[in-house]
Amino acid sequence: MAKKEKLMVIPLGGLGEIGKNMTVIQYGNDIIVIDAGLSFPDDDMFGIDLVIPDMSYLIENRDKVRAVVITHGHEDHIGSLAYLLNEVNVPVYATKLVCGLIEGKLKENHITNYKLNEVQHGDEVQIGCMKVGFIRTNHSIPDASALYFKTPVGTIVHTGDFKIDLTPVDGQPMDIHKFADLGRRGVLLLMSDSTNAERPGYTESETTVGHAFRKAFRAATGRIILATFASNISRIQQAINTAVQFKRKVTVLGRSMVNNVQIAIELGYLNVPDGVLIEPDELGRYPDDQVLILTTGSQGEPMAGLSRMASNNHRSVSIMPGDTVIISATPIPGNEMGVSRTIDNLMKLGANVVAGRDKKIHVSGHASQEELKLMLDLIRPKYFIPVHGEYRMLKQHGDLAVQMGVEKSHVLIGDNGQIFEFSNRSGNKAGRVNAGRVFVDGLGVGDVGNIVIRDRQQLAMEGVVIVVMTLAKGTSHALAGPDIVSRGFVYVRDSEELISEAHDRVAAVLERCEAGNIREWAVIKSQVRDTLSRYLYEKTKRRPMILPIIMEV
Amino acid sequence: MAKKEKLMVIPLGGLGEIGKNMTVIQYGNDIIVIDAGLSFPDDDMFGIDLVIPDMSYLIENRDKVRAVVITHGHEDHIGSLAYLLNEVNVPVYATKLVCGLIEGKLKENHITNYKLNEVQHGDEVQIGCMKVGFIRTNHSIPDASALYFKTPVGTIVHTGDFKIDLTPVDGQPMDIHKFADLGRRGVLLLMSDSTNAERPGYTESETTVGHAFRKAFRAATGRIILATFASNISRIQQAINTAVQFKRKVTVLGRSMVNNVQIAIELGYLNVPDGVLIEPDELGRYPDDQVLILTTGSQGEPMAGLSRMASNNHRSVSIMPGDTVIISATPIPGNEMGVSRTIDNLMKLGANVVAGRDKKIHVSGHASQEELKLMLDLIRPKYFIPVHGEYRMLKQHGDLAVQMGVEKSHVLIGDNGQIFEFSNRSGNKAGRVNAGRVFVDGLGVGDVGNIVIRDRQQLAMEGVVIVVMTLAKGTSHALAGPDIVSRGFVYVRDSEELISEAHDRVAAVLERCEAGNIREWAVIKSQVRDTLSRYLYEKTKRRPMILPIIMEV
Repeated sequence: MAKKEKLMVIPLGGLGEIGKNMTVIQYGNDIIVIDAGLSFPDDDMFGIDLVIPDMSYLIENRDKVRAVVITHGHEDHIGSLAYLLNEVNVPVYATKLVCGLIEGKLKENHITNYKLNEVQHGDEVQIGCMKVGFIRTNHSIPDASALYFKTPVGTIVHTGDFKIDLTPVDGQPMDIHKFADLGRRGVLLLMSDSTNAERPGYTESETTVGHAFRKAFRAATGRIILATFASNISRIQQAINTAVQFKRKVTVLGRSMVNNVQIAIELGYLNVPDGVLIEPDELGRYPDDQVLILTTGSQGEPMAGLSRMASNNHRSVSIMPGDTVIISATPIPGNEMGVSRTIDNLMKLGANVVAGRDKKIHVSGHASQEELKLMLDLIRPKYFIPVHGEYRMLKQHGDLAVQMGVEKSHVLIGDNGQIFEFSNRSGNKAGRVNAGRVFVDGLGVGDVGNIVIRDRQQLAMEGVVIVVMTLAKGTSHALAGPDIVSRGFVYVRDSEELISEAHDRVAAVLERCEAGNIREWAVIKSQVRDTLSRYLYEKTKRRPMILPIIMEV
Repeated sequence: MAKKEKLMVIPLGGLGEIGKNMTVIQYGNDIIVIDAGLSFPDDDMFGIDLVIPDMSYLIENRDKVRAVVITHGHEDHIGSLAYLLNEVNVPVYATKLVCGLIEGKLKENHITNYKLNEVQHGDEVQIGCMKVGFIRTNHSIPDASALYFKTPVGTIVHTGDFKIDLTPVDGQPMDIHKFADLGRRGVLLLMSDSTNAERPGYTESETTVGHAFRKAFRAATGRIILATFASNISRIQQAINTAVQFKRKVTVLGRSMVNNVQIAIELGYLNVPDGVLIEPDELGRYPDDQVLILTTGSQGEPMAGLSRMASNNHRSVSIMPGDTVIISATPIPGNEMGVSRTIDNLMKLGANVVAGRDKKIHVSGHASQEELKLMLDLIRPKYFIPVHGEYRMLKQHGDLAVQMGVEKSHVLIGDNGQIFEFSNRSGNKAGRVNAGRVFVDGLGVGDVGNIVIRDRQQLAMEGVVIVVMTLAKGTSHALAGPDIVSRGFVYVRDSEELISEAHDRVAAVLERCEAGNIREWAVIKSQVRDTLSRYLYEKTKRRPMILPIIMEV
């Protein structure tokens, strides 16, 4: 039993990145998974739709996996749950709204035999040899939880994504007392959200956005179009409250916004007075200054509502001078250009655009340094693993922990796949498991890997030049071809000379092969490729992918 | 002569964008071009190296073009000069350092018969029917100029890129008196830099960065690696001054940094005491705390010095714990992710990284709102065209001009290709000329256009599937094939079944064609493409480019 007395914490996603959060807590034969998130592809992951964690450790140990516990309903925490349950169908525990959002996701993925258990904040559930508790926190989506695990070696606290909002929109502030209580009884390990670890001070309360909304609504003389994250139910509640105050009807556009609003209303997380919501086709019945349009696209996503409006390409809304567009979000890193382009296009169409943190039209959902320090002080953990952040954020959060009295050698910074091992008196890094990115492209999960991506990158840069030749069986005598076909390389119409000379060079290679009695396809192909590659580079300074294809008759 | 009495101002680049600045000033048969810049490709312009303005208007009117006048030596102002002179070889006027930088560029592009005229601030040159004057300004590169044009209909002032730095590093503040003098005499049109039109207040003096350098140097215990823009000679001067103060030797790495430092020293724009500069291979002779390494890569460019060091891939420098890395720049929009990744990697290697505007380690080279208002007040123009900015910046700058007393209808906001027409008493938009983006890819200028880019985008997203068939002459009877070759689509090894079924479907199409006596290649190809496309989408939800190729024996 010596080995089994150690508790293992293994992040499979979420360290060194913001996204695809997934963490394994394992004691002996009991594995509990915290969250099952996805991330969106980087710009150089051509054609990839989603990225999910490598779950092979869980698949190999599927008989040990007891449950998945979910902290909140954001994509980077629930977006790979369908893929996980497909492989390892275990019970899932989450709060009410999170369950609602998960059910939608699982249905979309045609998963039906799931075991979804609704819990409430304050609940403590026995899973295998551990007790798991759910603590109310605040975040940019309601019903978020921190988790604690009472394990045989001590208590672990995982904050989930959080901020400390003392005046949240739903009137339900974080359960600070529970954290204090856990801290007083002694916590072995704290894992805490590092997203804003570089940001000094406190994150503003969500209600401050309400003030900004009222200011913007007061100034607006025409229609108001408000874009925000579809999952930010509190933000949407504030938009609706402000609309009610200014006697505007509200219509909701964009699939995810419509879905989330519907789920939130059904489950009681969004209160909309009767008669406020109208259908998009009813818009025409109301004067411009009595209308609020809620929509998606606050990140400049090309297919989302606001982006379509900005490019004058939306089914039911055309932007006109006099419209006020409120973008209640800041660009997620990587989306800056898309958002700028959207704003520019909206302004060109005559809209007045209100956006950006300066105007207090958005606040973060993640704790800043003072809140992180407060959490560290409440919990006073023996060991600390900063999670949910890029390396520099984890590092900075680690420094904060040391400031708050955690022993420097007890701050454990790692990356995905790292095994952290704990007894009731020790904690350290100990080996690794497989971890990494699995690409989802269309229906394929993992069938596009680095080689395919590298091919796509080369194709993207300089296109492809295909050389086809039909050879007489067993010879290098060309019966037809060489024919040269290119895509993404040059305008063929303007490059006839280049292509014709390329053709002659390949023909000469074939003649030399025939004369030299060279018949191995691999040799012929490689000579064709080398000759053509050299010639094209010399003439164009480009290196397209060159694909010689031989047929034989 | 009625038509000719109008002065035309035609921006060919730089409106609605930051980049590829180029503006035409035309009166009758006299054309003067302001700047000839380039821009860097957006993420979706696959494989493109550079983007330059569409110069067809100048090429069509080449007999009228009298000169190019250059405001300063940044790429977005001189980077397409070689391409312009290749087509229209006219005299170029610029200040000394700018001439030095241009000569380097032209040599790289094998252009030798250029006519480069060095001017000094305060000079006034007669070009065609206009007098062109050069006024000293401050910017993030020394020797920057604003320009004025005394034309038959009135005076035009173009600020170039500027800030008002009252304590510049080279001790040469902007010639505010000259602007005041021009304003007093009456200015018909002002064109002014809009980059920071959204930023309130004043832009900090370049010398404030010196204080931040001293603070960072004081704290550093090991080597210091400092990355900044290679063209920011004043920044480099301050780094060298600080190194001298802290008794550190300086070595310079990175081609553009080495070139610019050399040119600046030769022309007297950079003062380096004897014995301070050392060669990279001498680094080993000095203790870590006596070394400063100046390098490129402040924008996270993958091939630049700092990025190579961050990915542990630099020829002569390996980052080690104890190194201090100063990134004296903020990410240009679009580069945020690259810079973050670089910082993360440097920190993982143990470096202490000092970066970001918060630490005052970088200041902008462009005027903020109060400076822009001061410029508007100095000049008091009758008409105003905001330039050098995306639409929202131009708009905001226009609003500032109205605040400063320019009549609202005299604020002219346009885009590239817009003709602005002026008499001595009127100014308005009047028609358009061709303007747009010309892509440079390798040696090709303009041979990659939208079709090629669209092909590259499709190739990038889902790869290519090639179907080759050798048919018996005049029939649709397959003598060889169909063979299916794919790249960037799926791992072929894991998808044998998919490819084999695809093969059978294509073979069936060919059999049907043969049975139906269909011999037209276009018909056969389109049936193959449709069948394969449908099958692959159904199985994978992907749409690769499908290329049927027929040969005939």
